[in-house]
Amino acid sequence: MDYYSKQISKLIDELSSLPGIGSKTAQRLAFHILNMPEEKVNRLADTLVDARHNIRYCKTCYTLTDSEECPICRNASRNHRVIMVVENTRDLAAYEKTGKYEGVYHVLHGAISPMLGIGPADIKLKELMKRLEGDVDEVIIATNSSLEGETTAMYISKLIKPTGIKVSRIASGVPVGGDLEYIDEVTLLRALEGRVEL
Amino acid sequence: MDYYSKQISKLIDELSSLPGIGSKTAQRLAFHILNMPEEKVNRLADTLVDARHNIRYCKTCYTLTDSEECPICRNASRNHRVIMVVENTRDLAAYEKTGKYEGVYHVLHGAISPMLGIGPADIKLKELMKRLEGDVDEVIIATNSSLEGETTAMYISKLIKPTGIKVSRIASGVPVGGDLEYIDEVTLLRALEGRVEL
Repeated sequence: MDYYSKQISKLIDELSSLPGIGSKTAQRLAFHILNMPEEKVNRLADTLVDARHNIRYCKTCYTLTDSEECPICRNASRNHRVIMVVENTRDLAAYEKTGKYEGVYHVLHGAISPMLGIGPADIKLKELMKRLEGDVDEVIIATNSSLEGETTAMYISKLIKPTGIKVSRIASGVPVGGDLEYIDEVTLLRALEGRVEL
Repeated sequence: MDYYSKQISKLIDELSSLPGIGSKTAQRLAFHILNMPEEKVNRLADTLVDARHNIRYCKTCYTLTDSEECPICRNASRNHRVIMVVENTRDLAAYEKTGKYEGVYHVLHGAISPMLGIGPADIKLKELMKRLEGDVDEVIIATNSSLEGETTAMYISKLIKPTGIKVSRIASGVPVGGDLEYIDEVTLLRALEGRVEL
């Protein structure tokens, strides 16, 4: 790319190494950044560096946060006896957006995947079991509805059952507003199996 | 967004202010960045700051570059008597990628647009006319084939004609490999008008 000067090429290269940013998008972003006021670019760079530098796992639920304990775990009005297990912080945020869940979370940072060589020891499972030594009424498993998510859910439920703590799994079925015609067969069968009496 | 800690929210906000980055993409990017090795994040931030800090206009052709004169203008093997006028540095790069153009460029940084209130004085037109006082054989106008690009092309050609320098416009027509069925009528008519005898 010697039609761009060295620093522009470098900027485009760095941007296109980010996920979902192809070479065209990287070029568009690069020229946008080059046309931004310098102090805005400096602020963006500082935000990147600061966020990365200060990020850590919440000591309780292992979500990504910038303090020792995350705002949800610190919140006394949440129900700390109900723990929802999710694969990552984005999934936690998805449930938080509903505004209806009042328990706390546990973030696994992954799911068991024999294919990718990710075993139970590679996710925050030991840490979950440790938490269950305290007062917990229910563990809601909200891993994804993928092969890995299901495997992880099965594994965790088997691990928890002996402790006598209630374990549940979020329902899987037809999404609200979903048109049956466009929904895959596995989901349709899952919805049928999980039917509830009216 | 209090379901993310403050620094994560700030990072997502900053990223989603970039063009073409919606809130979902910004979240995905943010978590990718938070999971990157810290030194890679620092390098990315430095690249942003350095590129923006060192960027300037080439003193000859006004493309964005990091030195006083851009590599193309400094290249003695290019034909400095043929100048291609483009709207921005990305358009220059598009022609450079063909690898076949041997002249130099002039970057306008915009196009005349009465709608947006951009007049001839707002683009690098004075600077182009100044260059034409030197030895120039031909000016090839390669502004976009949009209303603004065409207006700019007409304006420039009228300005240059009296100087006796040859002025040309890149051809407009059906793109190579383009299926006539999917091409808009204006382009089809343009291709018809511009037909060449075989």
